[in-house]
Amino acid sequence: MITITSSSNPTIKKIKSLHRKKDRWISKQYIAEGIKMVEEIVDDGYEVEYLIYTDKLFDLKGGLELFNRIKSYKNLINVPEGLYKEITKVETPQGIMAVLPFRESSIDSMLEKANPFLVLLDRIQDPGNLGTIIRTADAFGVDGILITEGSVDGYNPKVVRATMGCIFRINMLHIKKSISILKELKDKGIKIYSTSLQGQNYIQEVNFKGPSLLIIGNESRGVADELLKMADNLIKIPMVGKAESLNAAVASSIIMYEAMRQRFL
Amino acid sequence: MITITSSSNPTIKKIKSLHRKKDRWISKQYIAEGIKMVEEIVDDGYEVEYLIYTDKLFDLKGGLELFNRIKSYKNLINVPEGLYKEITKVETPQGIMAVLPFRESSIDSMLEKANPFLVLLDRIQDPGNLGTIIRTADAFGVDGILITEGSVDGYNPKVVRATMGCIFRINMLHIKKSISILKELKDKGIKIYSTSLQGQNYIQEVNFKGPSLLIIGNESRGVADELLKMADNLIKIPMVGKAESLNAAVASSIIMYEAMRQRFL
Repeated sequence: MITITSSSNPTIKKIKSLHRKKDRWISKQYIAEGIKMVEEIVDDGYEVEYLIYTDKLFDLKGGLELFNRIKSYKNLINVPEGLYKEITKVETPQGIMAVLPFRESSIDSMLEKANPFLVLLDRIQDPGNLGTIIRTADAFGVDGILITEGSVDGYNPKVVRATMGCIFRINMLHIKKSISILKELKDKGIKIYSTSLQGQNYIQEVNFKGPSLLIIGNESRGVADELLKMADNLIKIPMVGKAESLNAAVASSIIMYEAMRQRFL
Repeated sequence: MITITSSSNPTIKKIKSLHRKKDRWISKQYIAEGIKMVEEIVDDGYEVEYLIYTDKLFDLKGGLELFNRIKSYKNLINVPEGLYKEITKVETPQGIMAVLPFRESSIDSMLEKANPFLVLLDRIQDPGNLGTIIRTADAFGVDGILITEGSVDGYNPKVVRATMGCIFRINMLHIKKSISILKELKDKGIKIYSTSLQGQNYIQEVNFKGPSLLIIGNESRGVADELLKMADNLIKIPMVGKAESLNAAVASSIIMYEAMRQRFL
């Protein structure tokens, strides 16, 4: 265990920089914060770059127990509470965070299972939405999440928090060439479904039982035209009331539920 | 139209006070902000107490058109941009807000339709969750939403924003005596379903076709024991992955979808 007290320490500067997307993608590292998150990391033995804590941790339920499990970690760093506040963006921090290496998956590992179900997220902007979608995807056994350029990234600390630990398990890949990836997947027999207000079919009429990829679009602009053109089927959620649309995380979750219901139940 | 430039003006003070729950419930008025919200208010002719705008409105798409529709309103108030910023909590305000009277519904009007589907929200804390649930409820034709004491209130400006205008249409009632209301509803033949991690039935096996009320619980503590005891059936969402739970708005939305699917499709 080492103690750092200066905000000009290079490690502290490095950790602070991980709040910026650009710096995250240079160092390929991200922050996961809070007792529950670090417990999951320890439980599952995930590789960490640093674990940073402040003594405030001991005031919280489960804090001492967690400390006893991590106290022999090589890169465990103790910082004063004031310095901790400089490196967190959480309003009421629990005094513990981990820095972890990116865990980008690959298309190949998403296709390992015989009958995969993938989700492609096109320019989702809200970190809470993205994190919630990842959480639901993990709950419903989704085999992979593709995130297009122009989305909030999956390693954004607010996204990580909203996943409630599911980020450590889900197959996730940030992609640039969406079109060529969709072509590759179509060639492999995967059917492409895209949400669209102009959808031809309601989700409960669609057959999600085969290898499938679901495209979810930006909160206000929907799915990009060039991606819509790649879809085998434009789908929509039935609505019987007056609301014109659903929250993006809710819409995604309902379709993932419908697909899971058809595939597993 | 009147112009107010002083932050000590009583009307301005009154509007500011509506950001506090206590003051909202004294004056029984709430704030709805943004071009889309005010458009809905004008479209549907809802009663307003005040409409407040700043000239920034004219810089935004649809701003001038909206102004032309409201310029003859009796209680239209123009304020300088600096003063507008004092009365909003939105980060990038569109320069227009309405103050409206509370629109509490009644149990009777929720039961007007022959086969009602109601939702009771027990101590939901997050304004985004509550707003999103109201939005989904409106989309899926829910006949009424009951909100228990200890929840964030439905007139909280962040809740109102997250409903995307659905707050103006949904039957909503804030309740204190949850138990006696549940008893009354049971006596009227309404079946009570409560979410619970110890649920006996998966939602897709439950028959939601009759008169029903669904209880959704607090984000971390779930449904209160005394409400669980009132339930005819404890239900849960099937999960095939590793995530232990879903976001509260997502869970509520999926069950409302399942119920709607059974009832209408």
